[in-house]
Amino acid sequence: MTAAEKKPIDFYFDFSSPYGYFGSCRVDEVGQRHDREVMWRPYLMGAAMKLTGSKPLVEREMIRDYAYHDIARAARRHGIAFNQSPPPFPLPSVAPCRAFYWLCDRDPLQARDFARRTYAALFVHGRNTSEVDVVVELASDAGADGDETRAALGDQAVKDRLRQATELAVERGVFGAPFFIVDGEPFWGNDRLDEVDEWLASGGW
Amino acid sequence: MTAAEKKPIDFYFDFSSPYGYFGSCRVDEVGQRHDREVMWRPYLMGAAMKLTGSKPLVEREMIRDYAYHDIARAARRHGIAFNQSPPPFPLPSVAPCRAFYWLCDRDPLQARDFARRTYAALFVHGRNTSEVDVVVELASDAGADGDETRAALGDQAVKDRLRQATELAVERGVFGAPFFIVDGEPFWGNDRLDEVDEWLASGGW
Repeated sequence: MTAAEKKPIDFYFDFSSPYGYFGSCRVDEVGQRHDREVMWRPYLMGAAMKLTGSKPLVEREMIRDYAYHDIARAARRHGIAFNQSPPPFPLPSVAPCRAFYWLCDRDPLQARDFARRTYAALFVHGRNTSEVDVVVELASDAGADGDETRAALGDQAVKDRLRQATELAVERGVFGAPFFIVDGEPFWGNDRLDEVDEWLASGGW
Repeated sequence: MTAAEKKPIDFYFDFSSPYGYFGSCRVDEVGQRHDREVMWRPYLMGAAMKLTGSKPLVEREMIRDYAYHDIARAARRHGIAFNQSPPPFPLPSVAPCRAFYWLCDRDPLQARDFARRTYAALFVHGRNTSEVDVVVELASDAGADGDETRAALGDQAVKDRLRQATELAVERGVFGAPFFIVDGEPFWGNDRLDEVDEWLASGGW
């Protein structure tokens, strides 16, 4: 298939998910290897969890302990900087999500830079990325105007943009983070990114 | 380390789990590759799910649809016979679990043969492996005496054996299927067996 026929990898994530962070550090390399664009699509995972009846990790005895262990182990495995163990999770991710889509509609690369900075701020530097002031600072670091970002976070059109993005994700069957869809195939989990890679290399099975 | 110092891979599974079935088809090869014994340890996953607050897949909208798709895809990926899509899940697994431990205390290899036959009966041939008659037939196929197996399924000592095995699994933090523990490291999921393999090859990270 020609480059124009190659569909993108849709990369869904929540800004408070450690596994989403790991996925964000790895997905672009997979896209490049197979000449696929990667569409970064943050959403509010809590909205999907209401539908699936899932509870946050911290409320799930045994699974929580396993996940904390596995998260730190996954960071070591992939050589990803990670200094928050146990992770500050869950954390409201409305503010960074709104900032992302506001930036993305102007400059997708800037939005992606902002997303990377936001994940690093939370999981490497321990910043509280649910706070507006922190989000404005991170957007500024990515090259956006601070005052405009602050105004955008309270703008109804931006709020609607995020709500719509979350609804579309849920309609597509997305419920976790990271969650990848490529050529119609859904893959849930950072640990499935290798499978995405194999799928694209082999043409599927 | 010498062979005597090498700890076994503990392989926990539930007889009604399709992913547990896939794990059962693959785990012995990983053990052989690293000169590790594999201890097959069926348990009642429902007991752990009460603690973790997890609901069965079929009750979890979105996750159910994804899982059905992923289960069929995983079978194709690993070249494992699988003819029940969507899988007959969940199914009570008390009877095959009791039969397993009763057999295991006499002949671990026969118990393992019985376990393989039971998984194939459910996921390849569509038999109802929650039924005593089916379990007795499968134990007979594995070489056990049918009447003795039938009597064992109602024996209080055998019931206690399974309850104890399930309690021990939960105490070790096991809550899913398949679930592997080796050298103190827990790995949850058929999709993590490759990671077990890497862990044993590299000595961990």
